[in-house]
Amino acid sequence: MSPKITTELLKQLRQVMKSPKYVQEPVQAYIVPSGDAHQSEYIAPCDCRRAFISGFDGSAGTAIVTEQHAAMWTDGRYFLQAAHQMDNNWTLMKMGLKDTPTQEDWLVSVLPEGSKVGVDPFIIPADQWKRMSKALRSAGHDLVPVKENLIDTIWTDCPQRPCKPLITLDLSYTGVSWRDKIVALRSKMAERKVLWFVVTALDEVAWLFNLRGSDVEYNPVFFAYAVIGMNTIRLFIDGDRMMDPAVREHLQLDSTLEPEFKIQVMPYGSILSELQAVGAGLSPKEKVWLSDKASYALTEAIPKAYRYLTPYTPICIAKAVKNSSETEGMRRAHVPKGTVTEIIAADKAEEFRSQQKDFVELSFATISSTGPNGAIIHYKPVPETNRTLSVNEIYLLDSGAQYKDGTTDVTRTMHFGTPSDYEKECFTYVLKGHIAVSAAIFPNGTKGHLLDSFARSALWDCGLDYLHGTGHGVGSFLNVHEGPCGISYKTFADEPLEAGMIVSDEPGYYEDGSFGIRIENVVLVIPAETKYNFKNRGSLTFEPLTLVPIQMKMIDVNLLTQKECNWVNDYHQKCREVIGAELERQGRHEALQWLIRETEPLVRV
Amino acid sequence: MSPKITTELLKQLRQVMKSPKYVQEPVQAYIVPSGDAHQSEYIAPCDCRRAFISGFDGSAGTAIVTEQHAAMWTDGRYFLQAAHQMDNNWTLMKMGLKDTPTQEDWLVSVLPEGSKVGVDPFIIPADQWKRMSKALRSAGHDLVPVKENLIDTIWTDCPQRPCKPLITLDLSYTGVSWRDKIVALRSKMAERKVLWFVVTALDEVAWLFNLRGSDVEYNPVFFAYAVIGMNTIRLFIDGDRMMDPAVREHLQLDSTLEPEFKIQVMPYGSILSELQAVGAGLSPKEKVWLSDKASYALTEAIPKAYRYLTPYTPICIAKAVKNSSETEGMRRAHVPKGTVTEIIAADKAEEFRSQQKDFVELSFATISSTGPNGAIIHYKPVPETNRTLSVNEIYLLDSGAQYKDGTTDVTRTMHFGTPSDYEKECFTYVLKGHIAVSAAIFPNGTKGHLLDSFARSALWDCGLDYLHGTGHGVGSFLNVHEGPCGISYKTFADEPLEAGMIVSDEPGYYEDGSFGIRIENVVLVIPAETKYNFKNRGSLTFEPLTLVPIQMKMIDVNLLTQKECNWVNDYHQKCREVIGAELERQGRHEALQWLIRETEPLVRV
Repeated sequence: MSPKITTELLKQLRQVMKSPKYVQEPVQAYIVPSGDAHQSEYIAPCDCRRAFISGFDGSAGTAIVTEQHAAMWTDGRYFLQAAHQMDNNWTLMKMGLKDTPTQEDWLVSVLPEGSKVGVDPFIIPADQWKRMSKALRSAGHDLVPVKENLIDTIWTDCPQRPCKPLITLDLSYTGVSWRDKIVALRSKMAERKVLWFVVTALDEVAWLFNLRGSDVEYNPVFFAYAVIGMNTIRLFIDGDRMMDPAVREHLQLDSTLEPEFKIQVMPYGSILSELQAVGAGLSPKEKVWLSDKASYALTEAIPKAYRYLTPYTPICIAKAVKNSSETEGMRRAHVPKGTVTEIIAADKAEEFRSQQKDFVELSFATISSTGPNGAIIHYKPVPETNRTLSVNEIYLLDSGAQYKDGTTDVTRTMHFGTPSDYEKECFTYVLKGHIAVSAAIFPNGTKGHLLDSFARSALWDCGLDYLHGTGHGVGSFLNVHEGPCGISYKTFADEPLEAGMIVSDEPGYYEDGSFGIRIENVVLVIPAETKYNFKNRGSLTFEPLTLVPIQMKMIDVNLLTQKECNWVNDYHQKCREVIGAELERQGRHEALQWLIRETEPLVRV
Repeated sequence: MSPKITTELLKQLRQVMKSPKYVQEPVQAYIVPSGDAHQSEYIAPCDCRRAFISGFDGSAGTAIVTEQHAAMWTDGRYFLQAAHQMDNNWTLMKMGLKDTPTQEDWLVSVLPEGSKVGVDPFIIPADQWKRMSKALRSAGHDLVPVKENLIDTIWTDCPQRPCKPLITLDLSYTGVSWRDKIVALRSKMAERKVLWFVVTALDEVAWLFNLRGSDVEYNPVFFAYAVIGMNTIRLFIDGDRMMDPAVREHLQLDSTLEPEFKIQVMPYGSILSELQAVGAGLSPKEKVWLSDKASYALTEAIPKAYRYLTPYTPICIAKAVKNSSETEGMRRAHVPKGTVTEIIAADKAEEFRSQQKDFVELSFATISSTGPNGAIIHYKPVPETNRTLSVNEIYLLDSGAQYKDGTTDVTRTMHFGTPSDYEKECFTYVLKGHIAVSAAIFPNGTKGHLLDSFARSALWDCGLDYLHGTGHGVGSFLNVHEGPCGISYKTFADEPLEAGMIVSDEPGYYEDGSFGIRIENVVLVIPAETKYNFKNRGSLTFEPLTLVPIQMKMIDVNLLTQKECNWVNDYHQKCREVIGAELERQGRHEALQWLIRETEPLVRV
């Protein structure tokens, strides 16, 4: 892939940074965060402003452009990709490495005295605003909100904001009606003595109303906000989507309802003024609950004394713990219901997935990479990089889909010829890490970050590591990356794991220029049986929901302990039983033969 | 042990909380933190205000007294002890348990509207002040500084502040002169563009000047502050200690020196007014560097715009990485230089220790506990609880000393009769955890908290756990608990581990009412050899400095892997070689025979 040439764009951006048409005073730096106004991880094309200005289109990254410099902060998953996609105008800031400055420190080091740093107040989360504003102020600079997004002013062919039809989900999928979810939310609000709750994250709006959309690729969400009062429900959403009879019936828009369940539908763009009106009408002690990740603009709409901010909303926490309809759905979603290049292989995977019952769309861009492309952790094949699969290289396929009953995400690493000893060695360490997490037993209430090192221990023993977290929360027909839980060496405030939560388990190893290895299952947190049960505190472990054989020719069986060997054999036995039965039912004999071959028991010698 | 009766004391405290003699306006709550004006963990008797008011004398705990309530927050190490030491006037707040409110939340729940909450501004660290003040303000209350310490006003027989003679340490112990330490500090100050540095932690003052004291039991420190400018050195210290010729010569007080190394000695009590004078004389952009753990009073002396606060000072970080003189000293300090009750055993341990070369004092109160007392994690035997060692109970001895060449801290758990299967099982899991940390290999720059779960994994598998961290930093003839590194499930901002740092490795298991088990070594972070060396990032592991046999009759050898068994045998072999040689040299044949018996190789069957 060749980098995007950004010389002209940066020149234009630097002009508007000084233009009285857009800024009250010139700004000496402009921050372009990754997210949209909902702080989404995956975003619609119209919100890909950071990719537009820099060329780097990974899921995480922040660009800062000053009069002299342009710099991009991203994490270990994207070091290679960002270096490939950006031209020489850009400096890559490798987050997590010791010598990389923070954005604040870098700004202070390059800015002239008394500078203004601009940012779109709708895009920057309130907590980030606060941290950055404080750091800049203490060095004599100012963070200022720039109402008009400066990237949009130079992005002449910016696509339109999507406004696709909605899907309604009935009780058989969700387990709980939207009315009951509102009731539960209001009871949490009463507990915390708040009168209003502002729903800003797209997956939280979708979950609350048991609706799904397709405004953002791979994430079944739609652009909307909601403001829930103790007696009112306001849904801010555009387009004629609310004209759809199925949606009207689902939300009971035309029924005579108790007033506290009557949904008022308002234009998406009116959220700020409506929220300002709410803020202006508050009496002392009346509080409004917002996520501290909500945008600075919305947070500022509520006077400081009336704000109640928390890192995780009650919706985020309720959503993370799946009910039995949801976990059953996730189980079903993981069972088949059906001269090659990376792109053809990816398309084939999508084709097969799309034949399954309840398929909606992919849950993220398929990573189909062979040989050196595998070392680019979030690689997506494009024609310029497309490599032919061969018997000489390792092939990595990370793919998943949205089904109406659940969301999947699985990675397998394969060799179609004979892997080298080194490739097998690395693969086996990764497998040992995968098993160490999957089979881990831990006390109820343990935070996921305490399990991260289990995934690395076998690699560490030989001086190998991988620069990404081990797992992320997974939504239920919602975002494939979902908070508040996860398994990562980064100790962001992750919430304790509890039974019903679903996360991925995906250690890897990446050899720059040669190959990438990752073994990923989606796993459900379940109660474990232990001899002493932590003095009744309760024991937890994981149950793999993903049932796909792990390629045996990649395993150096003598590096496994007997316990690890048993884990692989038990796992393969379960794949054979559950998936095999379905293949048999569907009469897919060739696939069944393959499955049986791939799930033969391993034997240590 | 019987609880302290605090009814009368609480009545008196509640009176002074309303007395215009001491407070400008009545305070509805008064916070009594654990620390002294230097935020020390271990404190002098005159600073044990929280123990005086409550009876609970563990090393960590915060008391809050309101008109109606008295509550004590402490952590898992002290749940049992605090419950034993406090009377019914007190509510124990068990930190780390899910349902325990934070101090702020609790205050908000019990205080009448618009309350004032008082605290001694010299005792509360600035970062805690900030957090608490903010939380209280957002609920309509106020945190207010109360100049006179209210506990001191009712503490009629409060002991005097100690003022003991100083010990000077020459280059053979410290490796670096105090002048060179000042030069290094000033270069860090220049890097951060600060003009002044305020040294508030007692161990940082002691380390900087290569002096030691004995004002605080077990910690070889003395009450002092220092303020370092680019051309000035001010040492705030009381008493005639500066009259000691050895000290005068060490600090070159009477020599003709370059002015920037001339130490101005000032009274301890003048720090606030001197710092206010510094603060008043600053020009814009001139900054003063303080730890964010410095007291609120000192922090406020510098106007906000001139403060430069960091969680760890450059002294703290330099002090944690031991130089070769210090690590060699630590090695030497760990080599011997000889019808029983817990107290007699503890005294005997102290007697033996005191016979060693370079012995100064113990490094903490010896924990000598048998049977159920062992389950009180920070137990210290007193006559009321003193139990006789027997052949029927597990005995736990956690002891350490300050030597001029280093600080030691070791725990061994023993049985003098026949341990039960359950006791052996628990001991063996703890041992597996100890080995997992001690033998862990990890990339350079890994934070200690990522290793904590290794110590728990074997316990977790059976549903057992322990409610304390796995390790703490250890000073070099300084505090036995030292930042900024450690190994804990708590992810306080611990600094990455690097070669030369010294920490403890001390997993345990505690069965309330029955026994306590802990296996603790002091270990040095050293480079490790790995096959692939993390792409030249470097590999680390630990070398045990403590060389004391682990009692073999407590080990169920069949629960160990062959690798673990080899670790024990290699460790015992090293004990035999290093300690045996010294015992032989000293002609201590009985001890040598014991050592040889206790270090026979284990064999798995």
